[in-house]
Amino acid sequence: MLHAVLIKGAFQDSVTLMLLSRDLSTLPDVKSVAVMMGTPANKDVYRDTGLWHEALAAATPNDLCLVVDSDGDNPDIAASMAAQVKARLTELAHSRRSAGFPVARSWRRARQLLPEANVALISIAGHYAFEPARQALEDGCHVMIFSDNVSIEQELELKNLARSRGLLVMGPDCGTSIIGAAPLAFANRIPAGPIAVVGASGSGIQELTSQIARLGGGITHALGLGGRDLSERIGGISAVCALDFIARDSASRVLAFVSKPPAPAVRARVLEAMQALGKPVVALFQGEHLARRHGGVHLVRTLDEAAALAVELSRVDANASALPQVQGRGICGLYAGGTLAAEAALLFAEAFGIAPDTAHVGGYLLRANGHRIVDLGDDAYTRGRPHPMIDPSLRNEMILGLAGESAIGVLLFDVVLGYGAHPDPAGEVARAVSALRAARGVGAPIIAIATLTGTAEDPQGLERQIDTLERAGIVLADNVRAAVLLATHAVIANTSPEGEAPALLRARPAVINIGLRGFADDLHANGVKVVHQQWEPAAGGNERLQRLIAQMQ
Amino acid sequence: MLHAVLIKGAFQDSVTLMLLSRDLSTLPDVKSVAVMMGTPANKDVYRDTGLWHEALAAATPNDLCLVVDSDGDNPDIAASMAAQVKARLTELAHSRRSAGFPVARSWRRARQLLPEANVALISIAGHYAFEPARQALEDGCHVMIFSDNVSIEQELELKNLARSRGLLVMGPDCGTSIIGAAPLAFANRIPAGPIAVVGASGSGIQELTSQIARLGGGITHALGLGGRDLSERIGGISAVCALDFIARDSASRVLAFVSKPPAPAVRARVLEAMQALGKPVVALFQGEHLARRHGGVHLVRTLDEAAALAVELSRVDANASALPQVQGRGICGLYAGGTLAAEAALLFAEAFGIAPDTAHVGGYLLRANGHRIVDLGDDAYTRGRPHPMIDPSLRNEMILGLAGESAIGVLLFDVVLGYGAHPDPAGEVARAVSALRAARGVGAPIIAIATLTGTAEDPQGLERQIDTLERAGIVLADNVRAAVLLATHAVIANTSPEGEAPALLRARPAVINIGLRGFADDLHANGVKVVHQQWEPAAGGNERLQRLIAQMQ
Repeated sequence: MLHAVLIKGAFQDSVTLMLLSRDLSTLPDVKSVAVMMGTPANKDVYRDTGLWHEALAAATPNDLCLVVDSDGDNPDIAASMAAQVKARLTELAHSRRSAGFPVARSWRRARQLLPEANVALISIAGHYAFEPARQALEDGCHVMIFSDNVSIEQELELKNLARSRGLLVMGPDCGTSIIGAAPLAFANRIPAGPIAVVGASGSGIQELTSQIARLGGGITHALGLGGRDLSERIGGISAVCALDFIARDSASRVLAFVSKPPAPAVRARVLEAMQALGKPVVALFQGEHLARRHGGVHLVRTLDEAAALAVELSRVDANASALPQVQGRGICGLYAGGTLAAEAALLFAEAFGIAPDTAHVGGYLLRANGHRIVDLGDDAYTRGRPHPMIDPSLRNEMILGLAGESAIGVLLFDVVLGYGAHPDPAGEVARAVSALRAARGVGAPIIAIATLTGTAEDPQGLERQIDTLERAGIVLADNVRAAVLLATHAVIANTSPEGEAPALLRARPAVINIGLRGFADDLHANGVKVVHQQWEPAAGGNERLQRLIAQMQ
Repeated sequence: MLHAVLIKGAFQDSVTLMLLSRDLSTLPDVKSVAVMMGTPANKDVYRDTGLWHEALAAATPNDLCLVVDSDGDNPDIAASMAAQVKARLTELAHSRRSAGFPVARSWRRARQLLPEANVALISIAGHYAFEPARQALEDGCHVMIFSDNVSIEQELELKNLARSRGLLVMGPDCGTSIIGAAPLAFANRIPAGPIAVVGASGSGIQELTSQIARLGGGITHALGLGGRDLSERIGGISAVCALDFIARDSASRVLAFVSKPPAPAVRARVLEAMQALGKPVVALFQGEHLARRHGGVHLVRTLDEAAALAVELSRVDANASALPQVQGRGICGLYAGGTLAAEAALLFAEAFGIAPDTAHVGGYLLRANGHRIVDLGDDAYTRGRPHPMIDPSLRNEMILGLAGESAIGVLLFDVVLGYGAHPDPAGEVARAVSALRAARGVGAPIIAIATLTGTAEDPQGLERQIDTLERAGIVLADNVRAAVLLATHAVIANTSPEGEAPALLRARPAVINIGLRGFADDLHANGVKVVHQQWEPAAGGNERLQRLIAQMQ
């Protein structure tokens, strides 16, 4: 049997409602419970779930509705419900008084209490989210809308307004942002680091940033866009704004992006903005089966791949900054292993947007734009002499031959250990590289990047081989892919736009929180200046009256 | 000025020739040196490189040719050359006498010395490799041909002969194999483990196995095929044989394969053989831009990816063996994070060859073949209640609802920590899973696999959350991709062919080494029974005579 109680004018957020619901479910003989505000949409839910009670007919959006289905026969159950809920509300009000941050009843009052506020975090029911968002934008604040069920027309109107004022709208339906370590809504504690994250997916951002943390990486900011931002209708307005912000933020050295596949026109626009960043980019367009690379943008397929590559790119960036600035922008790869050479050629071709050499004449696997990758195990080089893994003399000669070729700025090669191979391949190549550097002089530095194929058990002694390379100033990459990333980074000029970082990203934000009170608690706990605006539907939820009031303001 | 010396009837392998060449380069005033056997091909090299001397005209393939270009005026240089080379040859002969393994002058004698020999390793000049390979096959031995420059007609003839006898031909131009820890030619020392490697690329196999070792993995065997095996002409004869061997080798639990993209018809044949293995497969067809998955075969693009995934799959296999055998083959994923749900749906769709649900009605991201993945953050589930990351009650109910659904054998879900989320999400789901298991009873076990989004700094306490999951018998996967791999492994029946492992893979091989002596040294150093056949061109290199002798045998 259904029992209902209305508590008039007692607006609560959805988390408080959940807590109340849990309390009521402890009453004896309760089969099911539903605790909601009396909005039209919620009344529908009561009807759809068989929990409609005629007492609800009179409820307004500001009225707390309690409905319990009990199979017992307790005549006092309604009274118990009301007593229990009121006691809990008193308890909550008491605990909230000591929260440590101010509470306001209106936007105007909240602004007075926190004049430096620059972000509004809105998590009230989506039906009501437009008006406070518009007001915040008009007042010069960026907006994050956690709420879903905001119409796409309203979203477009808010984003156009924001664009005209240089402001960012995160959302609607934006679960997660982290700005200057301030957790906005659902957010994890992520160490500071050089990776910026932008995404149209809350749990995607949470998983990506958590995995970045687990891999020892860190973030500057994580900016949510909301799930519809990359639709044709919205056109990626917030994505373009967020990418522009990240472009101008010099602390952000690498970008990781996650979303569903954007609408085709938006995809092109977003990729263009990514290319213009002048920073390495990893993009996960979830579910897209396309190429792995679009110019400087690495396209990946899963969240773990995105996190691993973002962390790797941030380390490549850090390592590259320790390398000499080279004048020559050409890359020369001299490989004894054919498959290693081929992998390098394929990855460079992709990175530079050029075609690998398919004829392979003279062992060339790539020869274009001043770059070349050679397989020295090719028949062209093994006539009348042992394989280059055994006999390093030809490669040594070719390395020395780079003395006069100042257009080559990066030399790549493999060092292959194991049975059958030369007893000291690192020593051989290290001597050649040192001789090359001596011949080129300090005016024409060259970066030398090796990969090492071998294990700690190999007869040449892995540690000794590594040590030999390092002492010769040769950079050791973990694998061919990593070597190509580093080499590419070293020869591609940084084209990052000039200018100051956007104010939003220069310091921890100051936030006006409208909706779920817990979000304000979390911000406060993280040292973020926050005012909680205790929102409730204006004019008791009467929409005609609300529109009238809005027109008068 | 050129000086030349011939040493008649002194056949040496190419590594010895390299050592001699290095000795001669230490003579005073030497500009360049070339030391080769007097084969027609090598005579061409002398001509092409400007080192031709008329004394070479009389050289046979068994004659050692020494040519030095000296800018000095030493009249005794020829005598010095001869003396130095002879001294070195005497020294080498002496050191080799104590090698610890027998040396034979003929195949027949080698077989007498090592009756259990089952592999011939051939590294003589390619021009001569066919005949000893044919002889070894006729005599029941598998063959590895390190030599390049073997004609494709000869390769096909050898492989057809091998196929008719159930034997494997690795090569020609096969740089690397490792069988039962025996290093054949260029090979690294790799720990024992469950991964089998097959490849048409020597350096590819070396890099792949080295990286597997670096990641803590290990191998059963690594079988080389030679670079042309997957061409249309050869048709992958050795690949199919090697895959059959690996299929029957129960110690090989995962296969990693590396090659250039096979010819289309061969690609289909090889993929079919891979599918029939009944084992997880990672295939790198270098340079191919195709799908990421072909049924049970994971297609990857780089060597480091191949190694990482092979090691991961071997761990998934080991972990899966610790899980209960489930009757239900259906998978149910209940996710609070929409992007996590979507990634799971995409990866399962790929693994099972089914289409993801694109309509997303009711939050279903996949619903086919008894599997389903649901996004509980979908609007369908958030009407009138908080997001499932805050309010776990709906998911808990749905988990309990699986009590009567014995067709579901695996339950997947996410546990999302961080600000804004439930204070104990692991505890909530652990209780639900325990209740489900109690309701299903021991007769209907269910595997529960969680991913955890969060960091050690999150307010819920990462360690405590992990502990709660583990105590409830919930498997924690590193990420969604890993969760899907484990779930798929758990519900796909092992279809590995029955039967005994092939003799080649049951024990360390016994090898007759024909060509580079260093390969025999390495085998011997690794405890492999080896006889070195000291090969030289029959009939002094006279080919007409050789053919006559072959016909008489």
